[in-house]
Amino acid sequence: MIVPASLFDDLQKIRAQSPLILNLTNFVSMDLVANGLLALGASPVMAHAPEELPEMVQIASAVAINIGTLDAHWIPSFELAAELSCQHDKPTVLDPVGAGASLYRTKTARSLLEKGVRHLRGNASEIAAVFGDIRDTKGTDSLLSSSAIATWASEVAASRDLTLVVSGPVDYVFSGKESGQVENGHPWMTKVTAMGCLSTAVVATFRAVNPSPLKSSLHAMATLGICGELAREISQGPGSFRTAFLDSLSSLSLTEIEKRLLPVSL
Amino acid sequence: MIVPASLFDDLQKIRAQSPLILNLTNFVSMDLVANGLLALGASPVMAHAPEELPEMVQIASAVAINIGTLDAHWIPSFELAAELSCQHDKPTVLDPVGAGASLYRTKTARSLLEKGVRHLRGNASEIAAVFGDIRDTKGTDSLLSSSAIATWASEVAASRDLTLVVSGPVDYVFSGKESGQVENGHPWMTKVTAMGCLSTAVVATFRAVNPSPLKSSLHAMATLGICGELAREISQGPGSFRTAFLDSLSSLSLTEIEKRLLPVSL
Amino acid sequence: MIVPASLFDDLQKIRAQSPLILNLTNFVSMDLVANGLLALGASPVMAHAPEELPEMVQIASAVAINIGTLDAHWIPSFELAAELSCQHDKPTVLDPVGAGASLYRTKTARSLLEKGVRHLRGNASEIAAVFGDIRDTKGTDSLLSSSAIATWASEVAASRDLTLVVSGPVDYVFSGKESGQVENGHPWMTKVTAMGCLSTAVVATFRAVNPSPLKSSLHAMATLGICGELAREISQGPGSFRTAFLDSLSSLSLTEIEKRLLPVSL
Repeated sequence: MIVPASLFDDLQKIRAQSPLILNLTNFVSMDLVANGLLALGASPVMAHAPEELPEMVQIASAVAINIGTLDAHWIPSFELAAELSCQHDKPTVLDPVGAGASLYRTKTARSLLEKGVRHLRGNASEIAAVFGDIRDTKGTDSLLSSSAIATWASEVAASRDLTLVVSGPVDYVFSGKESGQVENGHPWMTKVTAMGCLSTAVVATFRAVNPSPLKSSLHAMATLGICGELAREISQGPGSFRTAFLDSLSSLSLTEIEKRLLPVSL
Repeated sequence: MIVPASLFDDLQKIRAQSPLILNLTNFVSMDLVANGLLALGASPVMAHAPEELPEMVQIASAVAINIGTLDAHWIPSFELAAELSCQHDKPTVLDPVGAGASLYRTKTARSLLEKGVRHLRGNASEIAAVFGDIRDTKGTDSLLSSSAIATWASEVAASRDLTLVVSGPVDYVFSGKESGQVENGHPWMTKVTAMGCLSTAVVATFRAVNPSPLKSSLHAMATLGICGELAREISQGPGSFRTAFLDSLSSLSLTEIEKRLLPVSL
Repeated sequence: MIVPASLFDDLQKIRAQSPLILNLTNFVSMDLVANGLLALGASPVMAHAPEELPEMVQIASAVAINIGTLDAHWIPSFELAAELSCQHDKPTVLDPVGAGASLYRTKTARSLLEKGVRHLRGNASEIAAVFGDIRDTKGTDSLLSSSAIATWASEVAASRDLTLVVSGPVDYVFSGKESGQVENGHPWMTKVTAMGCLSTAVVATFRAVNPSPLKSSLHAMATLGICGELAREISQGPGSFRTAFLDSLSSLSLTEIEKRLLPVSL
């Protein structure tokens, strides 16, 4: 499903063009998202004031909206950013952090879909909460296995023509009637806060250089998964893993991609 | 005072149960608190919107409230979280960051005591400001020696039946009429921002698995102190110390605890 | 222009006096700014509530105001901090992050000049936006070369008696009719988020121990540049670079300064 040379081509474009990625993201994730995008070669900007969003969306190559640390202050900014980015045809990816853990988050995520967002990345619980019945989730962790949710999410994506990235030990991507999956990664990625938030921003970054929602999502998740594996080999715990992960993002080579990209077991 | 096997038993419970710790914490500390709790084995969630606090408190095993980067926006959230967590009998620990540096912080900390919070962790100046006369503190650093404050804090804890963790080169814990202290630690812990904030969240985490306010506080502070010592041995400055500290939190073993736990000099 | 012993003298004062630096800074930068100032030897405090700014400004040795992640919530705090710090003669340094990227940021930066701020640090685009015509900038990156802006900024500083630190591969400092420049540094410094924000806070820190706006700015930028070079030698990418940079800040010696400080090519 993923062609190493094609993934690497996207990565080279990111490194050469340094696309500006507008992030409306939660307080916990700002440091990692900004540093992760810089390591990848992109140019992150964090901005959320309604007064400046029209200008910021216009200069952005893609937009990532993340509803963690939600409060009433954020919602008008999220809604305006979603509206403007759809209006200007900017690729926009939503991270419904904690949807299902509170009705407030679930409803906010749904309101952004109504504004026109068509590309989401979340764990299985979050995706299930946004599109299904309101279920219990345990904070921002996934309780539902991503495989259990796969068939169901596949139908949602097909019937509503959306792109859904369901993260987990295996990352599933459903885009309209197409789909793919990524088996690279390492469990320590769940031991670094905001790794999911960063994934969403990285998906938006790949969308900035590759118009295919399916391929950009797969390339993004495979890049992250491979860097997680590389980082694990040279780290002793979650602290050094985070450091090594950022180093890997900045230096990932075609050789490593070819060597490590797992064939998908279908 | 601290039995290594008993400390390690709490740690194993945290690692096995991964208790969800709800944090209302300041902007500076969010990254370290989330990463520290993940490294410890807990499941941190950062949320503060009054709209979702009832649900978030309900799914939480413990709550940590930290008043750094205070403004009028935070106060209703702090007060609601304190009320709800007391109502639902969730262990709740308050960090009165900067109490004494401004009357605004001192008053906010005191208002949370009135909502029912009975467990605090701060440096000597902060604890003195909350319970004593308003004194000058220099930002978030401790001006008063923790030993100077010890007798005084011991009386406050006993007369008001509170648990007070007074951090410093020696950490004192006063809980009702009981007390204990921790002599492990390293001065570089003061060279990493939000280490105090993380301590408070770690105390809350140990409370989630150990109902004794005294023992959970002592186990938390000893865990942090030992990890500080371990981290110092393999780091070259505050940057690598922070990284090594997170690694140590994730891998701390009974053998290390037995080897390093300092006997208390009483 | 820069005398190593004089730079090191400032650094020793910072380490000995641990000046309290009040930061009103953006969400992305809080972790790095606080950790960078701690590594340098200063005592950072992050506070922004109008209710406590009078007390916080009074205990501060210097103030750094940074307008990243701007919204309507921040502006009254910035304006009050600027007024109070000028009123109390506290050295105050402004970082006009993203000026030029949106009119909102440009106007906010200009309003703070009207409150009396006379010392700024930004990249060439930001400085150009604040003092010149509104120009396009690409997020928070510099589009204009700092050398292209140098002559122009020199005239602005002289005619308005301001201190302008224009960051880039070469850092230019214009202070009234005097000027200087720093050629130390490493391109990887642009791969770590908030490095510019930290620079501004470090300039404020040197101002806390050295009353000369010119010399304190040059010493600050040279310290950061040298630490960037030292960090590059022991790091593999932006993750380990950030870690090593903080380590270098805490241990920078006179010997390293003498060995590495680049003579200015005029």
